[in-house]
Amino acid sequence: MCKSTDGDKLPANSTLVPGAGSVHLSAPMLWGKGIIHDFKECVWQHWWKEMINFNQKTVAVTLLVFITVIAPTLTFGAVYGKSTNNNIGAIETMLATSWIGITYALIGGMPLCVIGSTGPVLAFTTALFNIAKNLDVPFLTVYAWTSVWLVGYAFLAAFFDLTRFVRLATRFTDEIFALIIVSIFVLDAVWDPFSETGLFWYLSPGHQSHAPYENDPDYNHLTSALLSILLGFGCTWLIFFFRGFKFSEFFCNQSIRTMVHDFAVIGSVIVFTIVKQFGFPDVPTETLNVPAQFEPTYKCCDASCRTQWPMDCADQGAPFGTRPWFADFGDLNGKGWVPIMCAAPAIGAFLLLYLDNGITWHLINHKSHQLEHGEAYNYDLMLSGFFNMVNGFLGLPWLVASTVPCIIHLQALAETDRNGNILSVQETRLTLLFSHLLVGLSMLVLSALELIPLPVLYGVFLFMGLSSLPKIQFWQRFLLFFKQPAVWPSTPYTDWMKKLRIHKYTVFQTLFFALVFVVQNVKVISIAFPFMVFLCIPARLFVLPKLFEGWELELLDGEDEQIEEWVDAKEESIRNFEKRRTVSMGEESDNDTVNQNSEKQDNEMEKSEEADV
Amino acid sequence: MCKSTDGDKLPANSTLVPGAGSVHLSAPMLWGKGIIHDFKECVWQHWWKEMINFNQKTVAVTLLVFITVIAPTLTFGAVYGKSTNNNIGAIETMLATSWIGITYALIGGMPLCVIGSTGPVLAFTTALFNIAKNLDVPFLTVYAWTSVWLVGYAFLAAFFDLTRFVRLATRFTDEIFALIIVSIFVLDAVWDPFSETGLFWYLSPGHQSHAPYENDPDYNHLTSALLSILLGFGCTWLIFFFRGFKFSEFFCNQSIRTMVHDFAVIGSVIVFTIVKQFGFPDVPTETLNVPAQFEPTYKCCDASCRTQWPMDCADQGAPFGTRPWFADFGDLNGKGWVPIMCAAPAIGAFLLLYLDNGITWHLINHKSHQLEHGEAYNYDLMLSGFFNMVNGFLGLPWLVASTVPCIIHLQALAETDRNGNILSVQETRLTLLFSHLLVGLSMLVLSALELIPLPVLYGVFLFMGLSSLPKIQFWQRFLLFFKQPAVWPSTPYTDWMKKLRIHKYTVFQTLFFALVFVVQNVKVISIAFPFMVFLCIPARLFVLPKLFEGWELELLDGEDEQIEEWVDAKEESIRNFEKRRTVSMGEESDNDTVNQNSEKQDNEMEKSEEADV
Repeated sequence: MCKSTDGDKLPANSTLVPGAGSVHLSAPMLWGKGIIHDFKECVWQHWWKEMINFNQKTVAVTLLVFITVIAPTLTFGAVYGKSTNNNIGAIETMLATSWIGITYALIGGMPLCVIGSTGPVLAFTTALFNIAKNLDVPFLTVYAWTSVWLVGYAFLAAFFDLTRFVRLATRFTDEIFALIIVSIFVLDAVWDPFSETGLFWYLSPGHQSHAPYENDPDYNHLTSALLSILLGFGCTWLIFFFRGFKFSEFFCNQSIRTMVHDFAVIGSVIVFTIVKQFGFPDVPTETLNVPAQFEPTYKCCDASCRTQWPMDCADQGAPFGTRPWFADFGDLNGKGWVPIMCAAPAIGAFLLLYLDNGITWHLINHKSHQLEHGEAYNYDLMLSGFFNMVNGFLGLPWLVASTVPCIIHLQALAETDRNGNILSVQETRLTLLFSHLLVGLSMLVLSALELIPLPVLYGVFLFMGLSSLPKIQFWQRFLLFFKQPAVWPSTPYTDWMKKLRIHKYTVFQTLFFALVFVVQNVKVISIAFPFMVFLCIPARLFVLPKLFEGWELELLDGEDEQIEEWVDAKEESIRNFEKRRTVSMGEESDNDTVNQNSEKQDNEMEKSEEADV
Repeated sequence: MCKSTDGDKLPANSTLVPGAGSVHLSAPMLWGKGIIHDFKECVWQHWWKEMINFNQKTVAVTLLVFITVIAPTLTFGAVYGKSTNNNIGAIETMLATSWIGITYALIGGMPLCVIGSTGPVLAFTTALFNIAKNLDVPFLTVYAWTSVWLVGYAFLAAFFDLTRFVRLATRFTDEIFALIIVSIFVLDAVWDPFSETGLFWYLSPGHQSHAPYENDPDYNHLTSALLSILLGFGCTWLIFFFRGFKFSEFFCNQSIRTMVHDFAVIGSVIVFTIVKQFGFPDVPTETLNVPAQFEPTYKCCDASCRTQWPMDCADQGAPFGTRPWFADFGDLNGKGWVPIMCAAPAIGAFLLLYLDNGITWHLINHKSHQLEHGEAYNYDLMLSGFFNMVNGFLGLPWLVASTVPCIIHLQALAETDRNGNILSVQETRLTLLFSHLLVGLSMLVLSALELIPLPVLYGVFLFMGLSSLPKIQFWQRFLLFFKQPAVWPSTPYTDWMKKLRIHKYTVFQTLFFALVFVVQNVKVISIAFPFMVFLCIPARLFVLPKLFEGWELELLDGEDEQIEEWVDAKEESIRNFEKRRTVSMGEESDNDTVNQNSEKQDNEMEKSEEADV
């Protein structure tokens, strides 16, 4: 649909807007000015109104964030336990999530961001555990010392505004990352070939969820599997059904409709939890892996706590006690150089902290999300370093901004139109505060968490994935491969670019997506995931401009205002061209062209009207 | 939203169109003229083109009608077997369905109508069986003699054009009946409290589908139930998904999209049959109740065939043979008056034939269905009498136009717009012909029918019900009870009638619906179902005009052209009124009113544009 075939008389597309498609680094705010600026802009200015905007949505979103946070927290906790020999376990993960969530809600710069465990940090911690084992120094000591270095690096980076490099990421990188997140949602919910999670895994008789019932003659793995699948997909369907009421005519007024919409997720979870517990009380389905009671996970053989029960003292009936909460900095097994050596792994830890936080912050602060309370990259990086130092001292896992719950949080607080475009977001500290208070409180009633069937939560994740898909332009372009070109939906790029050029760009982006996807999913290299995402930035800055013209990159990858500017310039140039031709060639011979042109514009107006509805 | 509050200056709504809302009987075509007219109009004129319009849709619809016909045929067959002591059974039902379907496709007047077993006729046959038992005359003899009278009555009714009374039914009656049909679809598919059919019934351990596996230790009724529910709802979802492609941009061109749409049902049935047979080969789910081989169901103890094996000769290892196909008219047990007496029950049988056929024909020929090949009520009533006489001689069940498959057939052949409104229907004899040829052929490979899981067919029925709901105005008005009045969708009645009047009409209609619904579902009185539907006609003719004004009935119950005429008259009267006021009162004082009016019209235009998209 390239409309510039009129040839050399029209100005070339590339000359319409000088410098189109280029990306610029913002000016640095060195010597801590960035931190202070962030604090003033994001915390000082908005703190009070973010603390008092309590309404119905606050309740709905609090419960929603709670159930979406508690599930990965417990899952990560269990994996941490296996990977670190119970030095860090589910209780530690819950405690860390809760205290950081509460504190961050009160003093953080971007309180829409939910902080939690992520895969790369887990992989790094596992590596650090193996280093400590090889060194023959207690893991928690190494971990604590590394944390000290970590906070130092984080503070320096914030002090010199190194976070400004994150802002070089454009839609190209953001959408690769967003689609990776969607793939995590959907695969985890339906069938993840890499990690044995997802509803269809229950059909496999060897799946670990069936293991506890191996010797139970009443247990039928197929019954559990089929029930799980029904609960999961049923929950997804019910959420979409409830949310559909928002733009319907049902109920007495818009507030009731909005309430049904806001409570759609939590309502559906409750409905299907009831269905499971009362409809099928005798059919076990997988539940959250909840620890038995609130105490450090590591159990000691004796008072010194240098050996672990029951591994190291199998003949001992019960543990002597649990490890102390505080790490012993001096317990270096005579190796005084270890605290210095920890500076090296701390670099890796810092890079993860920087990248993992950075990508998520950048995605959350995307312009289309209409956030108005500013970005606090430097201030929050400093906070993040501080939080993780405390965690290092206590033997709690390092936490960073966790993309999945962040997006859920953002979308739940957003007011959208019928097409899912965000109109405004209720920026608040209360939902993060209350939801993480709930995480803390749930440590007191741990067994209650077991009531929620895990398949129902998978249903929630599936909903999350599916509902964000339509908003990702990369996905829309990917679908163009399967659509009839003549009826492609009208967008700036389909209107003005050649079809093959669009496909070429999508293929290039898909290659990078595949690269990141593989790294994210293959366990042994998953630690490199944030690096791979960041690799997309130089690809956009240095490779793409060689393959595409600036105006093409602008249409595909620019900000909305830039695209609008270019389209305006293009249409203006066509109008001028027509005018010149009309003048120079006489009126009669040219009526057709003018008519054609105005027809084209009419068509476009119709198209865009259709798209609006 | 009554807009006539301007009071006595505007002409009253009731005077706008004289005689609005009244219903008239068409002129009779006595002395067989109706039959001849029907034959000329419907058969002679269109036969050839209805026999050669073979295309892709023919294949899709043939398969669709086959699977929707075969299921009730076998189900009714099983119930006939129980009710008539195997005098009539599944084989007889299949044979009757097949030969009548093929013959009707070739010579019938309205070849969109599918002919099959219905509940009321079954109930009547059961009653006749009990009469014969009390008389101590063989049932098949009584049945054959009744059939002779039946065809006589049917011929007389056709000869004197008695079918013209069916045309008195308006949207009021049609939509009550249509909603009853939808309730049958949905309840049968999901959970029918009256007949133990539907997906959720499988959850009950005592359901008859679990009985064959009572002593099978490997059988788990919950597994079967959950799998059945998944297959059923999965199939419904997949059909809607496939059909959605028709109005999408996917695939290379519109013909592929239309193909996906046309084969949506049969494709989904195949997909879920494969899922069941290959994914879960070891989990039994309910299948069609298929007879073992092709022969009369009734088995005899000896050559005279006066006693039934195994009931009457339990010690005999095998039956002597089966009953002969032809009824013995002389086997009256010495009661020579029985052939005369059969005139009495034949009246009841005829009324059923007349009513059951009539309602269905009327529903199928509704104007909104855009059928162009005419109505052949008289000719088809005569044919129906003849067919059932033959069936009476052979001991096959009486068949009448069967609403559910008729609607499926009609809708599958229809071309619709995005909102499901029918634009045109491919009127053909081929689909009925081929599908009933398939029914006949399937008697040769009876066991192959057992491959289709019944829950998948339930999924098809659920789809059928849900997809016809939006088109029923009665249902749309019922939903108004739950909608915010300020945002009611714009229709002629919501635009011009008072809200409470609409509700009053809907309540009245709902009462009649409830009455018909109860009669239809309570077994012992279900024989009266067609009478109850016909009761709606006098209710509309004599009761409704006392409760509502003519113009209100016209808006709610009139044909589309009548409604348009009234709305035009109304708008014209408003315009004239405004003009008079402007002239008589000077321009200044009246600008507001004119503006208000034009604003109102603008709003309406916007509304209707929204509704179109």
